[in-house]
Amino acid sequence: MQEEKEEGGELRKPGQAERWPSRALHFCVPAPLWEERRAGPQACERLWPTAGERPARPTVQTQDRGEPESIIHSYPEFSRKDNYFMTQNERYKAAMRRAFHIRLIAQRLGWLEDGRELGYAYRALSGDVALNIHRVFLKALRSLGSEEQIAKWDPLCKNIQIIATYAQTELGHGTYLQGLETEATYDAATQEFVIHSPTLTATKWWPGDRIIVGDIGPKMDFDQMDNGFLRLNHVRVPRENMLSRFAQVLPDGTYIKLGTAQSNYLPMVVVRVELLLGEVLPTLQKACVIATRYSVIRRQSQLRPSDPEAKVLDYQTQQQKLFPQLAISYAFHFLAVSLLEFFQHAYTAILNRDFSLLPELHALSTGMKAMMSEFCTQGAEMCRRACGGHGYSKLSGLPSLVTKLSASCTYEGENTVLYLQVARFLVKSYLQTQMSPGSTPQRSLPPSVGYLATPDLARCPAQRAADFLCPELYTTAWAHVAARLIKDSVHHLQTLTQSGADQHEAWNQTTVIHLQAAKAHCYYVTVKGFTEALEKLENESAIQQVLKRLCDLHAIHGILTNSGDFLHDAFLSGAQVDMARTAYLDLLRLIRKDAILLTDAFDFTDECLNSALGCYDGNVYERLFQWAQKSPTNTQENPAYEEYIRPLLQSWRSKL
Amino acid sequence: MQEEKEEGGELRKPGQAERWPSRALHFCVPAPLWEERRAGPQACERLWPTAGERPARPTVQTQDRGEPESIIHSYPEFSRKDNYFMTQNERYKAAMRRAFHIRLIAQRLGWLEDGRELGYAYRALSGDVALNIHRVFLKALRSLGSEEQIAKWDPLCKNIQIIATYAQTELGHGTYLQGLETEATYDAATQEFVIHSPTLTATKWWPGDRIIVGDIGPKMDFDQMDNGFLRLNHVRVPRENMLSRFAQVLPDGTYIKLGTAQSNYLPMVVVRVELLLGEVLPTLQKACVIATRYSVIRRQSQLRPSDPEAKVLDYQTQQQKLFPQLAISYAFHFLAVSLLEFFQHAYTAILNRDFSLLPELHALSTGMKAMMSEFCTQGAEMCRRACGGHGYSKLSGLPSLVTKLSASCTYEGENTVLYLQVARFLVKSYLQTQMSPGSTPQRSLPPSVGYLATPDLARCPAQRAADFLCPELYTTAWAHVAARLIKDSVHHLQTLTQSGADQHEAWNQTTVIHLQAAKAHCYYVTVKGFTEALEKLENESAIQQVLKRLCDLHAIHGILTNSGDFLHDAFLSGAQVDMARTAYLDLLRLIRKDAILLTDAFDFTDECLNSALGCYDGNVYERLFQWAQKSPTNTQENPAYEEYIRPLLQSWRSKL
Repeated sequence: MQEEKEEGGELRKPGQAERWPSRALHFCVPAPLWEERRAGPQACERLWPTAGERPARPTVQTQDRGEPESIIHSYPEFSRKDNYFMTQNERYKAAMRRAFHIRLIAQRLGWLEDGRELGYAYRALSGDVALNIHRVFLKALRSLGSEEQIAKWDPLCKNIQIIATYAQTELGHGTYLQGLETEATYDAATQEFVIHSPTLTATKWWPGDRIIVGDIGPKMDFDQMDNGFLRLNHVRVPRENMLSRFAQVLPDGTYIKLGTAQSNYLPMVVVRVELLLGEVLPTLQKACVIATRYSVIRRQSQLRPSDPEAKVLDYQTQQQKLFPQLAISYAFHFLAVSLLEFFQHAYTAILNRDFSLLPELHALSTGMKAMMSEFCTQGAEMCRRACGGHGYSKLSGLPSLVTKLSASCTYEGENTVLYLQVARFLVKSYLQTQMSPGSTPQRSLPPSVGYLATPDLARCPAQRAADFLCPELYTTAWAHVAARLIKDSVHHLQTLTQSGADQHEAWNQTTVIHLQAAKAHCYYVTVKGFTEALEKLENESAIQQVLKRLCDLHAIHGILTNSGDFLHDAFLSGAQVDMARTAYLDLLRLIRKDAILLTDAFDFTDECLNSALGCYDGNVYERLFQWAQKSPTNTQENPAYEEYIRPLLQSWRSKL
Repeated sequence: MQEEKEEGGELRKPGQAERWPSRALHFCVPAPLWEERRAGPQACERLWPTAGERPARPTVQTQDRGEPESIIHSYPEFSRKDNYFMTQNERYKAAMRRAFHIRLIAQRLGWLEDGRELGYAYRALSGDVALNIHRVFLKALRSLGSEEQIAKWDPLCKNIQIIATYAQTELGHGTYLQGLETEATYDAATQEFVIHSPTLTATKWWPGDRIIVGDIGPKMDFDQMDNGFLRLNHVRVPRENMLSRFAQVLPDGTYIKLGTAQSNYLPMVVVRVELLLGEVLPTLQKACVIATRYSVIRRQSQLRPSDPEAKVLDYQTQQQKLFPQLAISYAFHFLAVSLLEFFQHAYTAILNRDFSLLPELHALSTGMKAMMSEFCTQGAEMCRRACGGHGYSKLSGLPSLVTKLSASCTYEGENTVLYLQVARFLVKSYLQTQMSPGSTPQRSLPPSVGYLATPDLARCPAQRAADFLCPELYTTAWAHVAARLIKDSVHHLQTLTQSGADQHEAWNQTTVIHLQAAKAHCYYVTVKGFTEALEKLENESAIQQVLKRLCDLHAIHGILTNSGDFLHDAFLSGAQVDMARTAYLDLLRLIRKDAILLTDAFDFTDECLNSALGCYDGNVYERLFQWAQKSPTNTQENPAYEEYIRPLLQSWRSKL
């Protein structure tokens, strides 16, 4: 037994050792999850760093990350264990405590403001640190500020000589920026802007880090963040404070435009891309880790009457709940990595006022923000429900993951609005392919919509279930459907304008159709991105094989949940959909045996997960029972007994 | 202007007058929602009581309800206004305060324990009252207890001489009741049962109303409920305390069975049916009210460049988010009413040990529990997101509605398990139709699956969009799809057993397919139920017309979101799906003008909704701003300033 323990333990590095109270229980059996780990392929051990982040040096990423993480976890000041029992104010204060101490540590150890170590330290704290909006301001400054402005304000912010906020959304307007009501009037006499909130609905809503003046009340989550409101009564701001990389106001009030209409959105693009990688995707990954680990500990019913109770992960329906989420976690990972590369390339160009890549960057980051936040929220909620009643307990960690993701569907651009921006890009791209019929279009299409100009099959060639395990086949299928839906949406638009509707009316009457096309396009992008990442792994065949199953699952799951789109023009037949379903059910069974290692590979510490269900060792029930003891209801007297319960119970005596 | 105010005000009865702090703002403009109400059809005013509950006396239900509601709202002891700012213990105490005072009032006014008034009073408090599990125990007692036991314990419970709980779920087992580990050993010598929790996982988890011994920790919602755990160490209980309507233990230990295997599930059926009507459905209805009202106040962007900003409800995409939820609220209402009728009929028979209706009652209540909780949760979350950032604020009321509904997907039977129980019933019913091929089956099928024995069309006859507005057409379409999927699932089962798999293995390998069939069947049941309710309204043609649009929308929305199932065997062609989509988009536009009245008709008071966004008068922003002022962060000092923020801001000085 001891041997098993050590063997299982090898996958774990010392910095991730168990530090939870359950230790005190002195388990005399090996942790239940080790059996699962031993069964998996050895390749998975090297999976994440190899496949995801740096192909050449398999384990470096994980080692790099381990050091700042274990430093953070070794200080009680950073503990998040009591989070689930705290009030709004307590969570805010604890988040500020972490922000304070992380600065002390960074100073002492010489961690750079934008360096790896600090990044890993923030990751270990799951974003549960104050002064986040201060950092959003910094990103805006660096995107929109002139070099002089950056030189002046950047050090002030970095050293917390000032605390800044980013106040965009108002009580009455969010995503639709042109509707914002706050007024800035230039006073040439004093060379100042007069900033004013003329109405109640112009009140800034959600900015945080407490500049002025009030809290907006309790939210579903984000209690650690002091989202505030801000009303401005003719506040005067010097002309020089207007961020002036892309637009300037001269002393006499002349407005000079240096960028494009879209360049002011640049900070939002920056924030979106970083958000996807730093917040949205890891949150779904954590939910997958917790639900998958719990699902091999939880047992329910028998697969056969004489069997012992089965692990719930051995049920097909449980696999159907969890594995598509696991697959999409990997799909999004690869996509986010390539999006970040493209972004870094484009961002440098844009700062130098070359805007040629901005439309595609905007469409891609917009579409991926909408799709990733939507699917991650849905996926995390699926993981939460897959844990039954215990998934409803905050101690599982799942409720806070779900409520946090929920927010991401709205902030940084409401998803429906974002999808419709993608749709406009798709309509434009499609019309571009139609400009000179029969010949190649004049300008080349952005790569992400290249499929619109590619000759297309009318029927899918699959003849048996195994044919669906072909990246070429399903990528083509997704391209076909996306192209058909885009064409269909343009057709509806044109029919309406030809019958007399103006272009705005025609657009508004077809948005439901455009939405469908945009979603199909985004799904295609994730399938395509995953297959391209697989190709790069050709020298790592064991890893490639494990990941290909997830890629297949992702593509086929999408086909099955949208089968109507594939059957509509008979691209797929009913019989082919059934083949795809057979392939899908087979994949669930195959992925089952690697499931624990595939989630281990995300490399989250127990402290970072902060979940009674998702701990590395699998001691679910002991931990849940022990954590529950900390509930204030258990540590304090019953708050209602003397005042209400006793009189109720005794009232019948007085009637005797 | 004054005139408009009065005209709008007529729809409101005095008991529902505005009592929120926003009154103090002295609005000088008429409430923004009145315009919407004036535009709607007069019929809607009488809609709810007429259509829903008592055809003969249009407004009686609403008047009946008004009195207990306004009594409750007139006492500050029942106020739920501060809920969003409370800790777990504070919410529990406030719920106990309400339970205490509601008893005082009931005694004083002579409200009966099971009477209408008390029911309306609980409705007004949105279930935010303690001692709910005590009431669950009462239901179990009445279902499973012998007449003598009921005579003994019922008055003790009703007069709160004892406080009881219902402890079923354990730490390690929930839905799978056979896996429960708690032991009851009969000791014939003393005629007692010795009740014992042999393991940690046998600990009872979730019972409430504080018998013994601990709280299970913070949940997503239900802070007002003191869900506890309970460990039993050889606790002795007299033999007579075993509820003995369907099973008895004689003094010598002989076990006598008086019911069927299913009769012990009767309390769960009772609780499920009451839950759907009393908790699940009203919660989605509230979300619809809030989101719809907010969506005619919130404005965003222009439909045309020269227009003023449009109400968000005028956008097709917003209509697509909200109206299917509104339609399903009505669909479920009618279904729940007819289910309750069937239940009351069957329940009486079962108490008299006639179990012939139990299988269908079980299948129907199980399927409707799964479908209603799933769709209501999804629908309320859709409503929440449709309110953008403000839907993320607890002050909107929406987060607590969603988290409350989330729980209903798990408690009283996990939904996947329940759907699979329906699937078994469907397989059995289908096999029954196959028993004597060519002739009528031997026993008649239960009515809800009668369609399995009905001759079927191979192709849908629709030729244009308007053809889809025909209840006959879409009910047939849903029956066709449900029957095909059930047949398909049986076919897969039989293929596997014929190829050598045992029946258990074959079942487990086809559960994903069975799930799909069960869901299609449940959807069919809701469509069928809605069309039958419409037929009863033939003398109320104005109301019938308004509701038929919702019925059409419900059926067609389901067809479009599951179009693959209809296209699979070419029952629908791609062109017909497009016709259905055209019909669907037209319906959204038509329902738009009645939307406010259709939600008003649910007849929830502002106090009951407890939402800053969903108030009757539409003064959203004023109320949101005012409620936010109550945040403890606004009323107390910044808890982190002295300790963390000031030192951070000042640290740079020391470096100078």
